[in-house]
Amino acid sequence: MGSPTDHSGPQIIQLTESEPPYYWGVDIGGTGIKLGLVDHSGQTVAYEKIATMESQGPESGVQRIGDLVTSTEETLGIVGKVPAIGLGAPGPMDLPKGLLVEPPQLPSWWGFPIVKAFQDQLQRPISFLNDANAAAYGEFWIGAGEHCDSMLLLTLGTGVGGGIIVDGELVNGVNSFGSECGHIIVDSSPHARLCIWGGGRGQLEAYASASGVVARTRQLLTDGEQSSLSGLLGGADDELTAKKVYVEAEAGDALSLRIVDETARWLGIGVTTLVHALDPGVVSLGGAMNFGGANCPIGRRFLNGIIEEFKQRTFESVFAGTEINFATLGADAGYLGLAGYARKELLAASK
Amino acid sequence: MGSPTDHSGPQIIQLTESEPPYYWGVDIGGTGIKLGLVDHSGQTVAYEKIATMESQGPESGVQRIGDLVTSTEETLGIVGKVPAIGLGAPGPMDLPKGLLVEPPQLPSWWGFPIVKAFQDQLQRPISFLNDANAAAYGEFWIGAGEHCDSMLLLTLGTGVGGGIIVDGELVNGVNSFGSECGHIIVDSSPHARLCIWGGGRGQLEAYASASGVVARTRQLLTDGEQSSLSGLLGGADDELTAKKVYVEAEAGDALSLRIVDETARWLGIGVTTLVHALDPGVVSLGGAMNFGGANCPIGRRFLNGIIEEFKQRTFESVFAGTEINFATLGADAGYLGLAGYARKELLAASK
Repeated sequence: MGSPTDHSGPQIIQLTESEPPYYWGVDIGGTGIKLGLVDHSGQTVAYEKIATMESQGPESGVQRIGDLVTSTEETLGIVGKVPAIGLGAPGPMDLPKGLLVEPPQLPSWWGFPIVKAFQDQLQRPISFLNDANAAAYGEFWIGAGEHCDSMLLLTLGTGVGGGIIVDGELVNGVNSFGSECGHIIVDSSPHARLCIWGGGRGQLEAYASASGVVARTRQLLTDGEQSSLSGLLGGADDELTAKKVYVEAEAGDALSLRIVDETARWLGIGVTTLVHALDPGVVSLGGAMNFGGANCPIGRRFLNGIIEEFKQRTFESVFAGTEINFATLGADAGYLGLAGYARKELLAASK
Repeated sequence: MGSPTDHSGPQIIQLTESEPPYYWGVDIGGTGIKLGLVDHSGQTVAYEKIATMESQGPESGVQRIGDLVTSTEETLGIVGKVPAIGLGAPGPMDLPKGLLVEPPQLPSWWGFPIVKAFQDQLQRPISFLNDANAAAYGEFWIGAGEHCDSMLLLTLGTGVGGGIIVDGELVNGVNSFGSECGHIIVDSSPHARLCIWGGGRGQLEAYASASGVVARTRQLLTDGEQSSLSGLLGGADDELTAKKVYVEAEAGDALSLRIVDETARWLGIGVTTLVHALDPGVVSLGGAMNFGGANCPIGRRFLNGIIEEFKQRTFESVFAGTEINFATLGADAGYLGLAGYARKELLAASK
């Protein structure tokens, strides 16, 4: 599959030789909406990304998505051959009611009955998921967990998202809050870091997200630690980024390397907790906050640091039976997982 | 249902009016083996407890269990009317292979192919579970989680056991290590308590089990804290117990009350982590280490302390959608869950 992630605007990829039925994955974010048309094997046959235009409200958004779905199906000559749609959005949400509750990225969509709106416009079953859970399902279906029955995905970005799959089923939760692994507690000390969105202390997200990495780096620099990053401390708030920590770590800056190692340590603590609760067999790390990922020495050092912390904290047999790796689908994981989940639910319903 | 927990020896309870089929729940522990014959609604129609006689080895144990099953079915006139058996044992175990691996309580049973042995002797399907997961399934089926689709049970005893049920399915884990919630990390500080079985630091079990409560109390007394328990410090190791902490807390001893409150705090941290990962809707506390449980002011203070810590650490909507309660089945939860799980698996297989 070619990766459509970096395409700059709406376009239609040539249909491959794959056969219908196809499934739409529609991944709604605060700034952009990704639409992918995917076949039964996870092959993407069409992909488009449009602006969310949040300020214009949800009705406008649903209308534009619906128009694009319809026109694409007409263009490709597959009207009637896309029997289900997977729809993802940021939480908090109410999955049974098909509502967005209060996603901070989409204030004009709060309380909007998004599932009903899509059903009315497109007249087919809509599978509705939290976006992080959708990404986990994508990795489970055709990515880093393709060979497994269960898996855990931690998505490291501005925050830390999570997705848990147990024996093929997503943990969506009784309050639509399942798999929120960024909010597990890794530090119960009184001075633990505060959650970046406000709220609880000591949660994984405050340590292992890009925002957490920046806050921890800023703290050390403020405390007087020397680093090639020191010059950024007096600049604008957005000058210091996790990406720059990675670049300086690669150049050998000791403080940046320390941040990489300590981030790995916090993740190793969180991974131990989650594995001891779930024993998923595979823990996969997605998201852009990966210090270069598998193709870079610092990224591999980061991954090895997590594995080493986990090894020290778990049991020999559990360590031997748990794979910790980088996710493979990148920013496509969400729409792919949504399409795959829509397919799974349709197949289950027709049994 | 009458509670057979406190019966002093093997006996057969009079059959109620319930109809076959029945299901055996066989809960094997280090000192005792509980056998319960249970109907489709969770009603216990026969119950017996025998000594494990660990030193005589597993073949002898299986033989005695098998003989008791057979003779009980003959006595009750229900031969052929018990189509499945649920079998529980302490971990670590290998569920797919039907083996006990290295349970510390049963050294002579290590590596024993227990499921095959029972199948050979009793000629029917055996559902094999970790004992803590079995107890969780019991509470889920007919106890504290009867009204729910998902739940989490924490069993507070010598150690801390856990059982997670998501949408009706137990989380048994890829390495038969699922739901080991006693091993989640609640304290990542360098001087965190060591796991009572050796191994990792800062795990919930080291704080919220009876052993953890005793160790923490001993530490405070050694540090010179005054308490009505102080006189026990110089005595034999087993003189200081969690039960005595509860009794002294009830009598108003400040240090004992502090231990109750701090145990609740550690559990509140663990519950927050587990709820944020699983969003189970119900968290239930089983086991004897409950400071008197629901019927006693100290037990209710303990439960309220957990709820309060969770409230401070979670989101308003998640708090509102999560019930934290005491389990209701006591020591019967294990065999009841095993019978219920055997029934569930039989029904699923016949679909």
